[in-house]
Amino acid sequence: MDLKNYIRSVKDFPKEGIMFRDITTLLLKPEVVSEALNQLYLPVKDLGITKVAAIESRGFIFGALLADKLGAGFVPVRKKGKLPAVKYSESYSLEYGTDTIEMHQDALSKDDVVLLHDDLLATGGTAKAAANLIKQAGANLACISFLIELTFIPGRKMLENYNVVSIIEYHDEN
Amino acid sequence: MDLKNYIRSVKDFPKEGIMFRDITTLLLKPEVVSEALNQLYLPVKDLGITKVAAIESRGFIFGALLADKLGAGFVPVRKKGKLPAVKYSESYSLEYGTDTIEMHQDALSKDDVVLLHDDLLATGGTAKAAANLIKQAGANLACISFLIELTFIPGRKMLENYNVVSIIEYHDEN
Repeated sequence: MDLKNYIRSVKDFPKEGIMFRDITTLLLKPEVVSEALNQLYLPVKDLGITKVAAIESRGFIFGALLADKLGAGFVPVRKKGKLPAVKYSESYSLEYGTDTIEMHQDALSKDDVVLLHDDLLATGGTAKAAANLIKQAGANLACISFLIELTFIPGRKMLENYNVVSIIEYHDEN
Repeated sequence: MDLKNYIRSVKDFPKEGIMFRDITTLLLKPEVVSEALNQLYLPVKDLGITKVAAIESRGFIFGALLADKLGAGFVPVRKKGKLPAVKYSESYSLEYGTDTIEMHQDALSKDDVVLLHDDLLATGGTAKAAANLIKQAGANLACISFLIELTFIPGRKMLENYNVVSIIEYHDEN
């Protein structure tokens, strides 16, 4: 099964010149979701993962499934102002300005072995900030996994200190 | 297992006078997530569900798990401007102003039997708007399920035409 066949490419979204890779068409098919989940699971199944940290909001989908399959806890990494208790906070650069993500301080301890998950690796800015949240908590970040990687953007370079896995690659905007 | 023991209550969040029911503490414990998932699954397992529509973003967590357990497709209901293809759109009232949610038009067909899921039932405004998206698609909305219901707010009244299920109830703000 070629997972890429189930991804929809939408031209000029969210703005001109961007080819958006839409996973909603893949999500409609439970057998394809199972296959993608299995491909994400295999490289991490023996790492002793205790918590899956997932980035809001598309990362929550496979993040929740991975946590369940690994028998691990689920930790939401959310946009600023959404989490109610004491938090770690990290800001990162966008094309214009900055954005901030947060994680509860009591979500991870130094004994945790963490899988960080998001749906797409592009610039790696958000994932790097999320990795820094996990570092703040003193936990061991064993792997960062993505459903999709845009290899023509140097996102993996941004995450070079980490074990990075992706299961669908796009090498250009076509 | 009393699931309520795993929910954290945070006073005055997001604003004074509100007791926020925080599910992140429940999500940390895989055995508690399994129990909650099972309780959400039992009332809908024989309804012939073909698609689970889940409301961004906390609804994605148990929504994805329910879709997986039911062998159903997953349909994200998202905030305005997030979905790239042709959409249905519904607006609903907030305390101040309105908000809009969207769903891809090709996500559901008239043959689909749908479970709509979100984490919390309060006023029911968002769930009602999501139910209207499913109605626009002509699909059969078989059940609306919530992890938590605030029974002192008339959310269930707002959804009185639907089969509504919740597994954790709060009867007041304490």
